[in-house]
Amino acid sequence: MTEQKRKRVVILGGGFGGVYTALYLEKLLRKHDDFEILLINKENYFVFQPMLAEVVSGSVGILDTVSPIRRMLPRTDLHVREVESIDIKNSTITTTPGFRPHSHVIHYDHLVLALGNVTDFRGLRGLPEHAIPFKNLGDALYLRNHLIHVLEEAAVEQDSPELRRQLLTFVVAGGGFSGVEVVAELNDFVRGVIKNYPQLDPTDVRVVLLHAQARILPELDEKLALYAQKILARRGVEIRLNTKLAAATGDEAILADGTRISTKSLISTVASSPNPLIDALDLPKERGRLKADSSLLVMGTDNVWALGDCALVPMTDGGICPPTAQFAIRQASTAAHNIVSTFRGGERKSFQFKELGKLAVLGHRSAVAQVFGVNVSGFLAWFLWRTIYLMKLPGWGRRLKVAASWTFDLFLPAELVQLKLGDSMGVSHEHFEPGQEVFHQGDLGDRIYIIARGQAEVARQESGREIVLAKLGAGEYFGEMALLNQTTRNATVRCVEALDLLSIHKREFSVLAANLPSMRDSFEQVMKQRRIATASVLAEAAH
Amino acid sequence: MTEQKRKRVVILGGGFGGVYTALYLEKLLRKHDDFEILLINKENYFVFQPMLAEVVSGSVGILDTVSPIRRMLPRTDLHVREVESIDIKNSTITTTPGFRPHSHVIHYDHLVLALGNVTDFRGLRGLPEHAIPFKNLGDALYLRNHLIHVLEEAAVEQDSPELRRQLLTFVVAGGGFSGVEVVAELNDFVRGVIKNYPQLDPTDVRVVLLHAQARILPELDEKLALYAQKILARRGVEIRLNTKLAAATGDEAILADGTRISTKSLISTVASSPNPLIDALDLPKERGRLKADSSLLVMGTDNVWALGDCALVPMTDGGICPPTAQFAIRQASTAAHNIVSTFRGGERKSFQFKELGKLAVLGHRSAVAQVFGVNVSGFLAWFLWRTIYLMKLPGWGRRLKVAASWTFDLFLPAELVQLKLGDSMGVSHEHFEPGQEVFHQGDLGDRIYIIARGQAEVARQESGREIVLAKLGAGEYFGEMALLNQTTRNATVRCVEALDLLSIHKREFSVLAANLPSMRDSFEQVMKQRRIATASVLAEAAH
Repeated sequence: MTEQKRKRVVILGGGFGGVYTALYLEKLLRKHDDFEILLINKENYFVFQPMLAEVVSGSVGILDTVSPIRRMLPRTDLHVREVESIDIKNSTITTTPGFRPHSHVIHYDHLVLALGNVTDFRGLRGLPEHAIPFKNLGDALYLRNHLIHVLEEAAVEQDSPELRRQLLTFVVAGGGFSGVEVVAELNDFVRGVIKNYPQLDPTDVRVVLLHAQARILPELDEKLALYAQKILARRGVEIRLNTKLAAATGDEAILADGTRISTKSLISTVASSPNPLIDALDLPKERGRLKADSSLLVMGTDNVWALGDCALVPMTDGGICPPTAQFAIRQASTAAHNIVSTFRGGERKSFQFKELGKLAVLGHRSAVAQVFGVNVSGFLAWFLWRTIYLMKLPGWGRRLKVAASWTFDLFLPAELVQLKLGDSMGVSHEHFEPGQEVFHQGDLGDRIYIIARGQAEVARQESGREIVLAKLGAGEYFGEMALLNQTTRNATVRCVEALDLLSIHKREFSVLAANLPSMRDSFEQVMKQRRIATASVLAEAAH
Repeated sequence: MTEQKRKRVVILGGGFGGVYTALYLEKLLRKHDDFEILLINKENYFVFQPMLAEVVSGSVGILDTVSPIRRMLPRTDLHVREVESIDIKNSTITTTPGFRPHSHVIHYDHLVLALGNVTDFRGLRGLPEHAIPFKNLGDALYLRNHLIHVLEEAAVEQDSPELRRQLLTFVVAGGGFSGVEVVAELNDFVRGVIKNYPQLDPTDVRVVLLHAQARILPELDEKLALYAQKILARRGVEIRLNTKLAAATGDEAILADGTRISTKSLISTVASSPNPLIDALDLPKERGRLKADSSLLVMGTDNVWALGDCALVPMTDGGICPPTAQFAIRQASTAAHNIVSTFRGGERKSFQFKELGKLAVLGHRSAVAQVFGVNVSGFLAWFLWRTIYLMKLPGWGRRLKVAASWTFDLFLPAELVQLKLGDSMGVSHEHFEPGQEVFHQGDLGDRIYIIARGQAEVARQESGREIVLAKLGAGEYFGEMALLNQTTRNATVRCVEALDLLSIHKREFSVLAANLPSMRDSFEQVMKQRRIATASVLAEAAH
């Protein structure tokens, strides 16, 4: 059995760290295969992260920023699966089942952990329910569609100028690289396409960037950051420095100083956490990142390697590698070399690399950059950015397509197609702050709500006075009248103590109620009791 | 109030019929606006339907086949909304609410109905649950992703050759234009990209086209149809003539003669019904289509016009217009002229048009066509097809992009990125046929099932014998052990009488159970009872 003699390197994660490790390993792989490479990633593509923000404005095509991993890595086995658990003691990985309902358990000789980190809004009031993350391709597509969706809605809402202004307000939290690039592309896009909406007034558009520190882009020189601020401000972005986002609801962004910005579009690029898989490992960590030595081996192990954003890798100058693509790629080269040295008995290398530069693009034809210590800004930096990234894109096909997209973008108007991504979930979580209305008497009702936490009051407007009908707490529900077709709300429900709600669309609710007799029965019972209770409160109030 | 004097033409539907009516109306609109145009469509784009199948193989970009309606119709007001109801008596349209929970009621002076028809699998056993429709852009994207998904899964499934062959079998039902174009593009795509999956054997790929009649493409000359059959067969498509699809499950396509084809990919282009909105109208209809006169006015009305697939329009030769884009476009021109004539007191025109030709593309570099009565096939037909469609695409930008995509497609490999469209719904409907297993003892369990219709038996393998533990019917559920983390099924559940199930993923189920105390309680009670019942059955069987 030659199969068993071959060593297996398993790589977890298909970002820069994981994919480039496989790429370098493939280069070192000999004809007679002394080892095999298996990469596990939940998507079948690699995302060229630095260009993700351009998907928002449509200046590159939807698929231009991603490459199929199979094409990049012809000699690597790819499993498009979620990793369920990592067992360091037994050197195995378990992945989720696919069509066949059995787990896959995969043995490794060497394990490369390149799982990056994940968006994590937990603990931030209302953000898990209402903030839009910006990390992967799915997020970028979602945001792009959301922007078109609010524009379309604003165009229809002729009756309510407040709603129209709310729909045309966009808030981005976080003034690092990612936040700045998103706000720049978003701003360009919205201000560009609004001319296709003759019903809308371009001066109603408001784009706000929130940043907790005294200047944006802390990664760059102050001069460049100030230049970036000037450019963004000139293009209409309102920058709020020393300002933190405190909470969010479905209707507003709430700042730490209590200011409320009415918006349906809050994007946060701030919150990220270690991948839960890394979290679950019993290996030495610091601030959630795996402690690796300069050879990229995780401390205390002899076959587990870590790199990229999930690893803490020392630099030769005593510092720690920043979590950027440039570093991940160079770390991948070192890790691949060292893994092969372990097989073949060669010397291990220590990771060392001096950063070449940093770039942030500020939307159409402007950028800021620091290259070999020199500051560059404006059109030159933008041109540099495009050239460098184009050359770094994997594969000539991709480069050609991106070059074509960029060329078209110079003279064709921005893409305006709202690509609806699947059905919107019928069950969702919502957060409300005290004083806010969940719904108003007279509104159309199509969802029922279950209180997970907090308190609400139910009030009815009756011959000019408001009568509080009930207070509701955790485990109770409201809005059940929506189950009857085409009715308007017969009362207003208002948040008293911060509310976390589970809301279910009547479509899904009726499927559940039809199939779960116990659920239907208990709802019918409570509805009956309520009708009686309401009648008695109103009768009393009438006296 | 000049506002009130202007007449309003409301167009429902953004397909060829609706968009071209607006386009022709815009041409007739005068500077001093004697009428206004409002188009209502649930998407903000127009789909160039004849090119939709190319999205599957990726030979055009995802957005290349669609155009934003706003760009095409700068003087038309667009509402991106679903139509809720049409009130002919009061001349109003009600649309669904957006962010503001209130219905929009829109008054019209003239109404143009161009709502086409819809995919409708009702009444076809197992099709609503398991067949993939092919009608709009969402369907095309879904299919494309599904194809990549089954290829990825097949690549991981090293242990089960049957499952791998099932995953690599693709069945298309319906040999009309749409079915033939889908099967051709699907076949090209799968056989093209499989070389990127070194684990897979290309000879395992099976592509089947089912057609109820003696030859495919009934719309075309027999000679051309036979040519198309030859080309498809040569490329590996297995054509089954005189064969009807009888039913579907999640695991197979069941033919009328009882043959079962094991597949996870069943595409049906056959079933379509009138739009439910047209269905609900109290206007003269035939076979679900609105009866219009030769001026496109719906019989018995003087301000309701109908065209395209939802209308029955007489031709001058006594026949009836076929439901094609060519006819819809010419009908739109007649309808626009006649509406304006009604306002301005001119003559009405009668619709007349002689079809120019018919085209069906057979995948890469081959097609069949009938142009001005002449038959063309092979590369020439394909070249003709591309040229004609390119010229018919709305807007120069779109044409340029498509031309670029086609050029890249000549020398670049097919796109292989699996774009996941939103989270898969946690609640779904499933259909099983007698004898089929819902799950097998020892499988991993992550869903619970509720029986809507049919009967199932629960059986356990115990010391070499199978013991039937229970029979379950409508309203009962099973699989509740999945609620506990990481367990395998402790029994097999098998369909006895055709089963319609509602299945809920444990993720969604636990959210519901956590928030709905009554639901949790009733489940816990039944679980307890079952444990006792099972123990007693097993104890008896042990004697």
